[in-house]
Amino acid sequence: MQSSKPILYGGDYNPEQWLKYPEVLEQDFRLFEQASINTLTIGVFAWAALEPEEGVFQFEWLDHIFERAMRQHMRIILATPSGGKPNWLAMKYTEVRRVNELGQREPQRARHNHCLTSDVYRDKVSIINEQLAKRYGAHSALEMWHISNEFGGYCYCDRCMAAFRDWLKAKYTSLDALNEAYWSRFWSHTFTEWEQIRYIDKTICGLVLDWKRFMTDQCCSFIRNEIAAIRRDSPDVPTTTNFMGTHPDYDYHKLAQEIDVVSWDAYPMWHLPQDNHESNHALNAAFRHDVTRGIAGGKPFLLMESTPGQVNWAGVSPLMRPGMLRLASYQAIAHGSDSVCYFQMRKSRGSWEQFHGAVIDHVGHANTRVFREVEQLGASLLQLDSVVGSLVSAKVAIVFDWETRWIYEGVALPSNAHKQYAETILAHYKPFWARGINVDIVDRQADFSKYELVVAPILFMLSDSLGERLTDFVKAGGHLVTTYGTGVVNETGLAISGGMPGALREVLGVWVEEFDALPDAYRRQVKPLDDGKCGLTGVYEARHHLDLVHLETAEAIAVYGEDFYSGYPALTRHSFGAGSAWHISSRNDDRFSDDFLGYLADELKLTNISSSTLPQGVSVQTRSVANAEFVFLMNFNDSSVVFELIDGIYTDLETESTVERTIHLAAYQTCVLQRRLD
Amino acid sequence: MQSSKPILYGGDYNPEQWLKYPEVLEQDFRLFEQASINTLTIGVFAWAALEPEEGVFQFEWLDHIFERAMRQHMRIILATPSGGKPNWLAMKYTEVRRVNELGQREPQRARHNHCLTSDVYRDKVSIINEQLAKRYGAHSALEMWHISNEFGGYCYCDRCMAAFRDWLKAKYTSLDALNEAYWSRFWSHTFTEWEQIRYIDKTICGLVLDWKRFMTDQCCSFIRNEIAAIRRDSPDVPTTTNFMGTHPDYDYHKLAQEIDVVSWDAYPMWHLPQDNHESNHALNAAFRHDVTRGIAGGKPFLLMESTPGQVNWAGVSPLMRPGMLRLASYQAIAHGSDSVCYFQMRKSRGSWEQFHGAVIDHVGHANTRVFREVEQLGASLLQLDSVVGSLVSAKVAIVFDWETRWIYEGVALPSNAHKQYAETILAHYKPFWARGINVDIVDRQADFSKYELVVAPILFMLSDSLGERLTDFVKAGGHLVTTYGTGVVNETGLAISGGMPGALREVLGVWVEEFDALPDAYRRQVKPLDDGKCGLTGVYEARHHLDLVHLETAEAIAVYGEDFYSGYPALTRHSFGAGSAWHISSRNDDRFSDDFLGYLADELKLTNISSSTLPQGVSVQTRSVANAEFVFLMNFNDSSVVFELIDGIYTDLETESTVERTIHLAAYQTCVLQRRLD
Amino acid sequence: MQSSKPILYGGDYNPEQWLKYPEVLEQDFRLFEQASINTLTIGVFAWAALEPEEGVFQFEWLDHIFERAMRQHMRIILATPSGGKPNWLAMKYTEVRRVNELGQREPQRARHNHCLTSDVYRDKVSIINEQLAKRYGAHSALEMWHISNEFGGYCYCDRCMAAFRDWLKAKYTSLDALNEAYWSRFWSHTFTEWEQIRYIDKTICGLVLDWKRFMTDQCCSFIRNEIAAIRRDSPDVPTTTNFMGTHPDYDYHKLAQEIDVVSWDAYPMWHLPQDNHESNHALNAAFRHDVTRGIAGGKPFLLMESTPGQVNWAGVSPLMRPGMLRLASYQAIAHGSDSVCYFQMRKSRGSWEQFHGAVIDHVGHANTRVFREVEQLGASLLQLDSVVGSLVSAKVAIVFDWETRWIYEGVALPSNAHKQYAETILAHYKPFWARGINVDIVDRQADFSKYELVVAPILFMLSDSLGERLTDFVKAGGHLVTTYGTGVVNETGLAISGGMPGALREVLGVWVEEFDALPDAYRRQVKPLDDGKCGLTGVYEARHHLDLVHLETAEAIAVYGEDFYSGYPALTRHSFGAGSAWHISSRNDDRFSDDFLGYLADELKLTNISSSTLPQGVSVQTRSVANAEFVFLMNFNDSSVVFELIDGIYTDLETESTVERTIHLAAYQTCVLQRRLD
Repeated sequence: MQSSKPILYGGDYNPEQWLKYPEVLEQDFRLFEQASINTLTIGVFAWAALEPEEGVFQFEWLDHIFERAMRQHMRIILATPSGGKPNWLAMKYTEVRRVNELGQREPQRARHNHCLTSDVYRDKVSIINEQLAKRYGAHSALEMWHISNEFGGYCYCDRCMAAFRDWLKAKYTSLDALNEAYWSRFWSHTFTEWEQIRYIDKTICGLVLDWKRFMTDQCCSFIRNEIAAIRRDSPDVPTTTNFMGTHPDYDYHKLAQEIDVVSWDAYPMWHLPQDNHESNHALNAAFRHDVTRGIAGGKPFLLMESTPGQVNWAGVSPLMRPGMLRLASYQAIAHGSDSVCYFQMRKSRGSWEQFHGAVIDHVGHANTRVFREVEQLGASLLQLDSVVGSLVSAKVAIVFDWETRWIYEGVALPSNAHKQYAETILAHYKPFWARGINVDIVDRQADFSKYELVVAPILFMLSDSLGERLTDFVKAGGHLVTTYGTGVVNETGLAISGGMPGALREVLGVWVEEFDALPDAYRRQVKPLDDGKCGLTGVYEARHHLDLVHLETAEAIAVYGEDFYSGYPALTRHSFGAGSAWHISSRNDDRFSDDFLGYLADELKLTNISSSTLPQGVSVQTRSVANAEFVFLMNFNDSSVVFELIDGIYTDLETESTVERTIHLAAYQTCVLQRRLD
Repeated sequence: MQSSKPILYGGDYNPEQWLKYPEVLEQDFRLFEQASINTLTIGVFAWAALEPEEGVFQFEWLDHIFERAMRQHMRIILATPSGGKPNWLAMKYTEVRRVNELGQREPQRARHNHCLTSDVYRDKVSIINEQLAKRYGAHSALEMWHISNEFGGYCYCDRCMAAFRDWLKAKYTSLDALNEAYWSRFWSHTFTEWEQIRYIDKTICGLVLDWKRFMTDQCCSFIRNEIAAIRRDSPDVPTTTNFMGTHPDYDYHKLAQEIDVVSWDAYPMWHLPQDNHESNHALNAAFRHDVTRGIAGGKPFLLMESTPGQVNWAGVSPLMRPGMLRLASYQAIAHGSDSVCYFQMRKSRGSWEQFHGAVIDHVGHANTRVFREVEQLGASLLQLDSVVGSLVSAKVAIVFDWETRWIYEGVALPSNAHKQYAETILAHYKPFWARGINVDIVDRQADFSKYELVVAPILFMLSDSLGERLTDFVKAGGHLVTTYGTGVVNETGLAISGGMPGALREVLGVWVEEFDALPDAYRRQVKPLDDGKCGLTGVYEARHHLDLVHLETAEAIAVYGEDFYSGYPALTRHSFGAGSAWHISSRNDDRFSDDFLGYLADELKLTNISSSTLPQGVSVQTRSVANAEFVFLMNFNDSSVVFELIDGIYTDLETESTVERTIHLAAYQTCVLQRRLD
Repeated sequence: MQSSKPILYGGDYNPEQWLKYPEVLEQDFRLFEQASINTLTIGVFAWAALEPEEGVFQFEWLDHIFERAMRQHMRIILATPSGGKPNWLAMKYTEVRRVNELGQREPQRARHNHCLTSDVYRDKVSIINEQLAKRYGAHSALEMWHISNEFGGYCYCDRCMAAFRDWLKAKYTSLDALNEAYWSRFWSHTFTEWEQIRYIDKTICGLVLDWKRFMTDQCCSFIRNEIAAIRRDSPDVPTTTNFMGTHPDYDYHKLAQEIDVVSWDAYPMWHLPQDNHESNHALNAAFRHDVTRGIAGGKPFLLMESTPGQVNWAGVSPLMRPGMLRLASYQAIAHGSDSVCYFQMRKSRGSWEQFHGAVIDHVGHANTRVFREVEQLGASLLQLDSVVGSLVSAKVAIVFDWETRWIYEGVALPSNAHKQYAETILAHYKPFWARGINVDIVDRQADFSKYELVVAPILFMLSDSLGERLTDFVKAGGHLVTTYGTGVVNETGLAISGGMPGALREVLGVWVEEFDALPDAYRRQVKPLDDGKCGLTGVYEARHHLDLVHLETAEAIAVYGEDFYSGYPALTRHSFGAGSAWHISSRNDDRFSDDFLGYLADELKLTNISSSTLPQGVSVQTRSVANAEFVFLMNFNDSSVVFELIDGIYTDLETESTVERTIHLAAYQTCVLQRRLD
């Protein structure tokens, strides 16, 4: 059973930098033991150490690390080294270096900048991966394969463009179909030979969308190629690759199909100034954890990287205040992580990340504030074995979809300055997070039927089939919330011609004629038709984007209160089948979202284990297994808070003592309670 | 007579995008009729549809459009397609694509980016133009030829540079003369071979000036080449090309010599935040309309493009409030337009401008707010036939000169951060606009003798002959106003050596020794010597640029009130011959311009048909024919206004009823009165 | 003796621009005489005039200038023309043009953009230099050689990269040593062939540091090459090259080794808005003068360029208020300059600097405000012969070190947004400047033993030997002040591993564990342990960077007053040997620096000839010779001030009258007093 596994605790370690200092390596392992570190990620960026010359391999140092780790029962996550090209490879085979949008081939520098298409690169990666698999693929210390590192970026070389043309031929069969899909007669951009597709013209929105789909597919095939080389000698060890939250380059939902375990690198900017409240960092982090769990299909994921101290690549990176490391780590687990891993175990002495936070600092001993916090956290995590493998159960799904975002951000609209796709999704996530209600973040292809409520903000791209699935969802008793910017284009970016919101028009019962775009400083009133109706009271403020909506079969709940569209519907409800469908016409203030979505949460009895009025900055999340529920309580404030839990019997997982329902949490405090469900 | 012609009403239409949807085309024409649309601009960017392969032409679809338009008595403005290159052309003949300043050839993308020099491009354009002329040049529905689209931008390819060298040889004959003109001994930039002129070095100000003159000439010759191809089979149909207001790239006064009718594309940013008052958008639009009429030599022009809704290329583009479309359209006519044309008749389904405003939206029917406003406007315009061909008569000219702007903006000055050429001209235009006084905007080569008052702000570049012409103008009784930044360089950008303002020193009676440059937040007092003199009262604020002026034969009217130049002349008057010459030493606040230029307007009895104290945001303009005057009354406020007209008998052109002299206009209301002159 | 020499007064003159206007040249020389101008810098950017075609020389015009200057006993500083390449050279030998970081060769344009490595360029420079030396090297009017102009910038061409590799081979001998020094195993950047070093990867901090060292050496060798060509025929005439204050590109301390006399170009932005107080411009200028004197090893330097009016390359350049020209010029002399030279003597008529301030304006006569001020200043300077050659004597040294700045600015730190190296040094200089205490600005290789106090802010890069030298300095009775950011990396940029501040840990008696990085708006309290101790009273504010310090053998003087590090040392003192060592943990407000460094100044009796409480904006500096001291009094306020000097007998150098100790200075007034030391 999974419950016998511990939380993986450790992170990125680069012994290849210290081969001349065996005493350092030895000291490191002593310190790992002291801090209850049980897992090391080895080999990220180690290619030059593993294959210093083409075809010449050097594994002795890695053998030693495996042995040394074994000795103290540590697990190893072994990375394939493709994230960074050795100089000999980049210089001899220039094709492996990326070409930018202007057609310039990049010099060898930095990292994460190889062409995904290059056969040479794929072959060289296969060779080193095979060697690694042959030597370590069956090693008992091997926990997992870590495929490359933080995939991202595009290459525009001739090879990539040729592969793209092949991809397009397979998709469209004829140029006629492609021209139709892109509406490329506009500005005389009609393609009359496949060879004419040589650049990514930003003004052809459908082309840009397909390019990003292609680049995603190309990354998938690159990953497949990496894994194939491993599988010959390591058929069963699971694979992962580390994602980056909502990073826009590739559709992570597709990449996730290629690997066994989803993991990600979380770097919230704790303590930096934030609009409104410091806890917005926690909100952001929570959202990205949930995005990642969504990518993992709801299964537990791994926190693969996080900093135990400061980062060094931001403008300003404050020290994490005492307690923050533990709090941030528990938050990851609360949202579904089965690990707490760091970048990096020991600070490198030189080069770009020498001042990035690490478990072991340049000073090299255990007597540092950071090490002590890492050590204490390690001890605490030993109490959480029972959480490993447990699941987050949610009745609410929010749609965050890569392709939707790409086309929405790629087209030119009257409201260009204020698109804010990710921020908008986050704004609709916040009311649930603030109430301690678990949420799944899914893409547009998710199975909606298992949810009671689906919130799909700015569902800009809408196919008939998606419209149908959402309609069926409502018909069957589900509740759907959509917003401005919904049902505007089809899946190749063509405007929907029958009137917005296209295939959702029936279920929503509205027609969106046009929308106003307001400068940032402008506001328009939104008012409930009856004060108090559906949780709405008083006057709200709309900004940026305001749909002008005509009721068809829906009813208005709120309306605009000024301008020539005063009285136009601002919130509509349509009872449809066994469910209901709601449309929010404008980007409103936080109070609106909180009141309205809070109302829905109450109506649908989504309220979770906490009372619905948690103090600001407090988060409550639950994970559960068959017979138990784990309740994570987290205070992201720098002051103490008090709040109540609902009925139940609660035991603190660390102290194993029973806990009162009235919870007191000190500044930055967190704890995990087990709630008996009987 | 011209009065038998209607206002042209219609705009850009791209049926080539909808050839697979004949029902859409049919619907469009029905809607055109419903909205009294009488004119379509066809063929802009249609090259790929007309010539899908090199030398293979396809005109059936266009034949159909001509026939369909004829059927409902519509006129066609036929565009040559050179604004957008088909892919086959751009790929096969790489020379047609522009080279940027860094020497990089652009990929095929977007539009308006062909080399003006390329023989291949000129030839290919000639071929398609000839084909079009042969087929449609004598068609009875053909109203006008629309040459290419929105010319702009520079190419730095070897062909362009070679042509530039030829142009320079023709102008300067010897390198010695060129070196002298550019003062290129500075920094050892002396040219000793013509071939050395291969880059446009921004630090050689005279070279940059000549480059822009050359690019203007190259565009003229490109246009001539286009028209020559048409004229073989269409000798009499007038030509136009659509300008863009004060767009800086080419000298529109020169381009206008090549075509028969001047037209332009107006996209005011109605409703966006503006300094001071929303009506500044109207001021800006009025100014650009008058600039365009100036380019047309005072003749009526065409409004070739405007949006019936929103644009989609701005950061934020609000909906046009009810009434704004009519108001903006009447404003164009008030300033001399004989048309109201839109981009675009139907929204394209895809690509870059799919969300740009259009008469017919994606929804495809007449039941939209925008379509209804277009339809109502169409009905109104039917009443304005008598306005067509009438002229705007002005006693005031303001100089806005492309070459002056180029050299002023190109040189390095102590006040680089605050040059603001166009804004400065506008600031001197505003007091007349606010009083309902017609103004001509002319370039420095205009015939000044027909005006009573010439205002020439920042006449930075001053030849002896221009100085002479302005001196003669004053001598003969004219009144001249100049400002800081006048008479600084000659026509190749060399500093005037005898003391500023050079050839205007005698007529102005001042010597400008030097000027202070102030940071944006700084101000200096300006005070009349006698309060009330020449309309000036109290203390004004000068900023940015302050000439330190010595009186020679002029008298001071106002002086600076502080700093070490306290008491130096801030406004001078010189009675000279039968006229007077005034110099404004500094950039002053709006109140100064309003008081002083208002004073001149009163003195010269320039006050027009309205009283001089129009409410803010109200504009009054007149057009006239032999026996009638048309008075346009426009309220750009979102609230109602009341004001008085001067004596006369007024008839509303739409209602044909007599109107009282006390005018009430609702928010955004406009009307046209005919005033009997007997 | 040196005292027989006058202050050099004059500046850059470009007669080659006016060869067709002999009357202009003649007029210029008359005006020079009128203004007591005694020195002309000729030939800067005159290459095209001297060698219009390859190998064809033209010296007659320069002969004439030498003769004409001789006639009125003027001295000539003759420039080698390498700062600007003639077109014929740049076009024929493309290798002389720089290649940028992207590998693109620049077009011929602007100036100061030749490859420092190109053999062709070095040869061509040698040829023209030899010609100049042959003709003028022994001319009795020749005062000095001015090597090129304002060296700066980097070239990344293949020749430069090859030379860099040779430089690296000589430095490191083996790639193994280089890889160790750069810690290049990080991200697999290990170099396995020398040829792989072809780009300057910004992420390899040690490589970037070496690149800047190499470029400095390359510039030194370029200068040596220039001088070698001169020395054959002009063995004794001193050389200079004009520096630019704290310009970051090359280590000026190294460049200074190649020339005889240090000079610089000073362009303070007088009168522009400044934080806090207008006199910050004076502070900045003072600092850069002292930096330059430090580069000159304490010897007098030359002010080679300054503007007599406005500059034209800034966004806004106000007129210099009456008196400012004299004040700024005297300030240069006060800090060690033996000259007042201008760019430029006459405004060029065209090209990029035609509106840059000059002694003679375009109007061409003497009747301008600027000329009159230049003339009056010339007359005054005649009284200052006795100052020439006198020295600035200082007991305080502040370390400003190019290499330290390079590595500090090049690495990625948690406080990237707030590095502010130069600003930090300046902040520690200000308290001394405000007290009229002379300061030497030195680099890290200076001989500290001659100072009583050494302030070394952000001594980020620390070798063992530098640590030892500073330790010895303290042991021997010196006083050392260090700050946050000290002792972090070694001389190849590797992090110091034994605990910060490395080799200064013993003498400072502290260990710096980590540091907090705060957003700009954040502050933390700093409080003395006992109010009044070491000059500290009340609460100070720390920002940006806060070391968390542990006392080892030092004592805390002040501590942080808040956050989790409340009570941690903010200022420490360690009595060590015969001296003391102080560490400032955080970037504090100006009041802290003023109180603490003012306290040290009092303790060490550094107070100079003025009382320690000079009015804000007043500067007092001294220069001295064997038997006399010259006291420069400068009021940078636009209002008058009064203050007291210490005991002594003071004579005004200009009026030769005795002066009371109570000094009254009008706005912008300055004077020089001689103080008898007997």
